[in-house]
Amino acid sequence: MNSNKMSKIQIAKAKRLRSTPYTSRIEKQGLKAYTTYNHMLLPAGFEDSLEDSYYHLKENVQVWDVAAERQVEISGEDSAELVQLMTCRDLSKSKDGRCYYCPIIDDQAGLINDPVVLRINQNKWWLSIADSDVILFAKGIAIGKNFNVKIIEPNVDIMAVQGPKSFPLMEKIFGKAITDLKFFGFDYFDFRGTKHLIARSGWSKQGGYEIYVEHTESGLELYDHLFEIGKEFNVKPGCPHLIERIESALLSYGNDFDLNDNPLECGFDKYVNLDSNVIFLGKEKLKKIRSEGIKKKLMGVIINLDKINMSQSIQLKDNENNIIGEMRSAVFSPTFKKVIGIAMLKKPYWDVGLEFNINIEGVSTKGTICNIPFI
Amino acid sequence: MNSNKMSKIQIAKAKRLRSTPYTSRIEKQGLKAYTTYNHMLLPAGFEDSLEDSYYHLKENVQVWDVAAERQVEISGEDSAELVQLMTCRDLSKSKDGRCYYCPIIDDQAGLINDPVVLRINQNKWWLSIADSDVILFAKGIAIGKNFNVKIIEPNVDIMAVQGPKSFPLMEKIFGKAITDLKFFGFDYFDFRGTKHLIARSGWSKQGGYEIYVEHTESGLELYDHLFEIGKEFNVKPGCPHLIERIESALLSYGNDFDLNDNPLECGFDKYVNLDSNVIFLGKEKLKKIRSEGIKKKLMGVIINLDKINMSQSIQLKDNENNIIGEMRSAVFSPTFKKVIGIAMLKKPYWDVGLEFNINIEGVSTKGTICNIPFI
Repeated sequence: MNSNKMSKIQIAKAKRLRSTPYTSRIEKQGLKAYTTYNHMLLPAGFEDSLEDSYYHLKENVQVWDVAAERQVEISGEDSAELVQLMTCRDLSKSKDGRCYYCPIIDDQAGLINDPVVLRINQNKWWLSIADSDVILFAKGIAIGKNFNVKIIEPNVDIMAVQGPKSFPLMEKIFGKAITDLKFFGFDYFDFRGTKHLIARSGWSKQGGYEIYVEHTESGLELYDHLFEIGKEFNVKPGCPHLIERIESALLSYGNDFDLNDNPLECGFDKYVNLDSNVIFLGKEKLKKIRSEGIKKKLMGVIINLDKINMSQSIQLKDNENNIIGEMRSAVFSPTFKKVIGIAMLKKPYWDVGLEFNINIEGVSTKGTICNIPFI
Repeated sequence: MNSNKMSKIQIAKAKRLRSTPYTSRIEKQGLKAYTTYNHMLLPAGFEDSLEDSYYHLKENVQVWDVAAERQVEISGEDSAELVQLMTCRDLSKSKDGRCYYCPIIDDQAGLINDPVVLRINQNKWWLSIADSDVILFAKGIAIGKNFNVKIIEPNVDIMAVQGPKSFPLMEKIFGKAITDLKFFGFDYFDFRGTKHLIARSGWSKQGGYEIYVEHTESGLELYDHLFEIGKEFNVKPGCPHLIERIESALLSYGNDFDLNDNPLECGFDKYVNLDSNVIFLGKEKLKKIRSEGIKKKLMGVIINLDKINMSQSIQLKDNENNIIGEMRSAVFSPTFKKVIGIAMLKKPYWDVGLEFNINIEGVSTKGTICNIPFI
């Protein structure tokens, strides 16, 4: 199954954990596990084993119900100012039709989310969010500052088409034009008379697209069409993949970092623009952190084990039993034949190759520190 | 099992869906289903059937892991002003050591949450929240208004002791003093040398307490002690109960109401203080709504069925196929021998006894409108 930690405990559905337009379809397609994300169901595993679906994703094409990546739409005359205030990335030279990975931080530089920001135009932005209620943060700031903006969660349910064969599959449906889309570009493409916003993006490093479905009926037709026409490319349903995302070091908000971490500790340096003139929350705090130096940072770890089930962070210790950090995500990698993980390590324990002790479900073992990404 | 909609689909655990200090205990005690709430695991069903646990709760005592009711701690010199700004309930005469049920609304009077607010003192408040990131809303406003406050999620993991026998059980542990606690009062009580904040409150109408555990080790000892000493009261593990809460019309944020509803539509009139002098968000909007009259409101519905599985809202229609509202929660009630539900009904379809048509999983049936609570 596709998810790492199978608990054998069921999920109790309720309206509060919103279904997506694709829910009934994925359940018929052999869904085995859910997680929740932005108060919505997110598939976490189908019938294939975690390893089988890993190889499938790297060699073929998968369609993912990632409607749980909700949009926060910020529009109106102060929208650009508000969006910039929320992120440490300089958006002053941003362009319509482009996606920007933007850490969102508070006034203390604590990470609130790490959305992909879509600039629809200068007065309309979509924040395609990770798992926290960014809409409430945006509303709070807008109210406090009396901004002239409108902030809503629009009806947008993303399906992702991921994997190397996503390119021929999407070309077959949308024509050559879609293969001209550059990474993190987006545009509108026609499917049977309905326009869909499609970005070349997605939460894997295997290439692909995200279709921002605003017109549900057409989106469901497209979903079915992808599976029909995709047979020749061996298309399967899938979901964000634990092995693939850890190997690629695609960081996960709530797993690898949260409000207690700042962007410099998470290796987001290239999205932290402290020397430009733009105004954003936490800028002075980040300058202070930069000048003093960070005290902890995210790195990789490798452990000589053939499996792991992780549902909370695990301390890493040196031989004197000092805590040197904590592992926050981990999975067995079929590529490395070892457990690989992402850990927040205290200064000065940042040496690649440094050995540590870790106790996993009562068994003490050793691991070493490495750089990320693994691949 | 204790939850209404058993999906047979597993929950995929991850650090992002935080475990609680009690997680390993409840899993040993026969947990069968989880929901998630505030990015945390919330038990949703044990080995007993939903009905058995309903009667058990009404006649005995249960201990609930409700750590997912997270606290937003707001402290500092502007804390009272910020807390008041966030709720339409007049807190100007609030007292230390008291709990207040407070709808939180935005500037458009849309509901953001409905926490129980604990006034620890004039400069320190806990908002014991439903399922949305109130901390981000509070931070946004505080940043926008430049308030002098500190906003954190403290280490507090509530266990609830609910049911009529909670009183003798808690008296046996904490002595006579705890039975003197009035409804929605709280105080600190000693367990083996550690003080715990205990409120007479809880998300059932069967009476009981909520223990706000800040000292985890002592809390876990207390958890075990409650089960040891509680044998004579037939104590069992439990969780917020769908039948009991719908019969009692304890409304659930995200199920029965959300950002698209205002407090007057949800029957929260007694917590809406428009004629006092306090300043809060959405006050002018609410005055306008009051003077124009609401256009929809929450009421009860009764349907002549012996079961229902609900994971999204269901439309209610009249005989001309006009949509008159939507049912948002529902369950089979062993007391009424019918399905009872909570529905948002459009004006003018507010007559008790009015019949409607509803299609449940392809089967068309009829129901009638009633007042809430049912019991």
